[in-house]
Amino acid sequence: MSIKKRIVIIGAGFGGLNLARKVDKRLYDVVIVDRNNYHSFPPLFYQVASSGLEPSSISFPLRRELRGRKYRGCVFHLGKVTSVDTAAKKIHTSYETIDYDILVVAAGTTNNFFGIDDLRRHVYTIKSTVEAIRCRNELLDRLERASLCRESDERHRLLTFVVVGGGPAGVEIAGALGEMKRFIVKREYPLLDPSEIKVIIIEGSDALLRNMGERSSADALAGLKQLLVDVQLGRTVKDYDGRTLMFADGTALDTYNVIWTAGVSGVDIDFDGGAAIAGAGKRLPVDGFCRVRGLNDVYAIGDIALMADDAYPKGYPQVAQVALQQGEFLAAVLSDPETIMKPFSYRDKGSMATIGRNRAVVNMGNLHFSGRMAWLVWLFVHLASLLGMRNKVVVFIDWIWNYFTFSGGLRLLFRPRRYPDRTYWDE
Amino acid sequence: MSIKKRIVIIGAGFGGLNLARKVDKRLYDVVIVDRNNYHSFPPLFYQVASSGLEPSSISFPLRRELRGRKYRGCVFHLGKVTSVDTAAKKIHTSYETIDYDILVVAAGTTNNFFGIDDLRRHVYTIKSTVEAIRCRNELLDRLERASLCRESDERHRLLTFVVVGGGPAGVEIAGALGEMKRFIVKREYPLLDPSEIKVIIIEGSDALLRNMGERSSADALAGLKQLLVDVQLGRTVKDYDGRTLMFADGTALDTYNVIWTAGVSGVDIDFDGGAAIAGAGKRLPVDGFCRVRGLNDVYAIGDIALMADDAYPKGYPQVAQVALQQGEFLAAVLSDPETIMKPFSYRDKGSMATIGRNRAVVNMGNLHFSGRMAWLVWLFVHLASLLGMRNKVVVFIDWIWNYFTFSGGLRLLFRPRRYPDRTYWDE
Repeated sequence: MSIKKRIVIIGAGFGGLNLARKVDKRLYDVVIVDRNNYHSFPPLFYQVASSGLEPSSISFPLRRELRGRKYRGCVFHLGKVTSVDTAAKKIHTSYETIDYDILVVAAGTTNNFFGIDDLRRHVYTIKSTVEAIRCRNELLDRLERASLCRESDERHRLLTFVVVGGGPAGVEIAGALGEMKRFIVKREYPLLDPSEIKVIIIEGSDALLRNMGERSSADALAGLKQLLVDVQLGRTVKDYDGRTLMFADGTALDTYNVIWTAGVSGVDIDFDGGAAIAGAGKRLPVDGFCRVRGLNDVYAIGDIALMADDAYPKGYPQVAQVALQQGEFLAAVLSDPETIMKPFSYRDKGSMATIGRNRAVVNMGNLHFSGRMAWLVWLFVHLASLLGMRNKVVVFIDWIWNYFTFSGGLRLLFRPRRYPDRTYWDE
Repeated sequence: MSIKKRIVIIGAGFGGLNLARKVDKRLYDVVIVDRNNYHSFPPLFYQVASSGLEPSSISFPLRRELRGRKYRGCVFHLGKVTSVDTAAKKIHTSYETIDYDILVVAAGTTNNFFGIDDLRRHVYTIKSTVEAIRCRNELLDRLERASLCRESDERHRLLTFVVVGGGPAGVEIAGALGEMKRFIVKREYPLLDPSEIKVIIIEGSDALLRNMGERSSADALAGLKQLLVDVQLGRTVKDYDGRTLMFADGTALDTYNVIWTAGVSGVDIDFDGGAAIAGAGKRLPVDGFCRVRGLNDVYAIGDIALMADDAYPKGYPQVAQVALQQGEFLAAVLSDPETIMKPFSYRDKGSMATIGRNRAVVNMGNLHFSGRMAWLVWLFVHLASLLGMRNKVVVFIDWIWNYFTFSGGLRLLFRPRRYPDRTYWDE
């Protein structure tokens, strides 16, 4: 009789949870470590930021999920992983040290500010639930302050909303801001004139949704223009001091509101004192079996893993489908170590993005479609992917509600207070 | 043709909103000032604190409410009122100065720590939505930390939950904690033993729910005991340093978790430099027409108003019904200034409190009942009182859900981060 090995999974996102669910628990004990006590749903963060959905509707308590039969043999530990010692086979979290036999890094990505510290300090971001809540609060605060402000320059800065980055997250949040301008401000902020509100999206390349093909780019451009969003292509941000956004071409733009979606980077974990790995944007280079190159018994899956093949020489896209498929693949590899398998290969099931109500773009293989049909597909796919029946029901209600009332009902500014108790804060 | 007078209402709670809705807008412009951009529902704060309901389900965006036809002529200004100058007829908020012809103070109450600064610093409270969110986060954090803690004294302090105050809020949160211990910990926190968790309720007098009569007191006591809550009557808290709760009788109790429900005080607003008014616990003494004694054109309604009559020589209870009725009464007084009316008189429609699932106490006139029937009445009355159909539906779903799964699905620890931007914080 052999003693079970312990797999420690860092991160309970799509990849980590799928692996935990599917790996053979007769062979392994599984410890899931996450900095949050919930699984979150990144594709809808922008709807939290724009008051369309509640944070709780797209979050699912991990301990509740782990009650499920398929997770028997998995335990959850709260903690932010700070470093890994691959010689001693230990990880260090904000609270404790955990031994592993096999380590799987599925910690995802965070914002990349390309070393510009001023940006990090002053922009809003939507790469986590908490960041999205903060963005919602900031946007609502700005509308309230502008309502009370009679000084024209100040009012202008308060009401200029700039989204940096023309990928799906940027296009979706810009679309939501455009709808806010068009449908909500007139009815609910009588002291504001909708025409005072500027929504601008900045993209460094020459197209929105560049990775989704020309037709998607054209649809996104047309959709945002219809929502009176000012689309500025081929512009690169250089710096931002909280008041003035500076561009590489020397021009500038006055605004208090910059939403940064222009870069992602692997979550920062120190391996063996920092010497072991050097990956582009802190992603971990892995081989076709998710093994991190240069390390023993360490695997990586999902957004943080950099895996390339002939079809994707620069690495797979950082999307939920890759993480889910790699989680399943790695579960099979680990559950049946005797069988020699073929390396992982990504099956692209398609990509999609919304641009406001009734409007989305969908790519599935060679099929491209847009408009209301694409929007309905988008709604359905996202609803089906949400964890938990309660969340599906509440999201469905909120979407129906928002559709018929032309407004989200969640414009609630829950400002946290500063409490002295240090335990409460996420530093 | 006369120019309309301006009524400024401080506070968009039950009293303030009812007044705004019902006062004659042909005679008055109405400005509603609130420190939050939403109307909140204090009777259910404890369910937010105990992960049973979402904050958004019991909050309603004010600007959306004010779109209603009955509010035509009302505008909303965000701001915390800091002082009132009754000679100049101006109020000062955190953002601006507003002139009034008639001022109505409907700002409600906050926690009273009876001058003990250490208490204020270290306890958790549930007198606002944001306080309840914080309490939820702290409780969830404690369970996670205890799961990782092997040091027995530390674990004991982490898992001792003390509620101070045996009124409805105290009894309700203690009941919810008792249910957490009984139903949730065993299933979701495998590293904790439910018997390690202590839930204690401390009350200075000799009975729980003292204002609801002897039968309610007995029912509450029996209900909490059944949930294994340790009920300690006749004990008074003296101090708390964040680790040890000290009692007036010289005894002490080690705990990291004290939820304070033992005192309320009127929200702090400075009138004319502080000289004008001295009321018990900062409530504003008013006559039978809601006029604040000693001030001209200043009225007060709801929890912050101290109005007494023969039936209530010490003043009306601080409950939603009084606020609603005073709001309606004052609307009639102001809308028809020529008619001499009878002074306000409170019609007690009853009082109620829950003690966990299937268990509540209800007093209506001479009728007292308890148990499941009372619990259903409690559910129905609270559901009916919630603002907004979306909120009613979501609360109903969550209640049904919680009832059949024996657990709230919202144990989500959304830790806010410290951001440098000062505008975001509620200081």
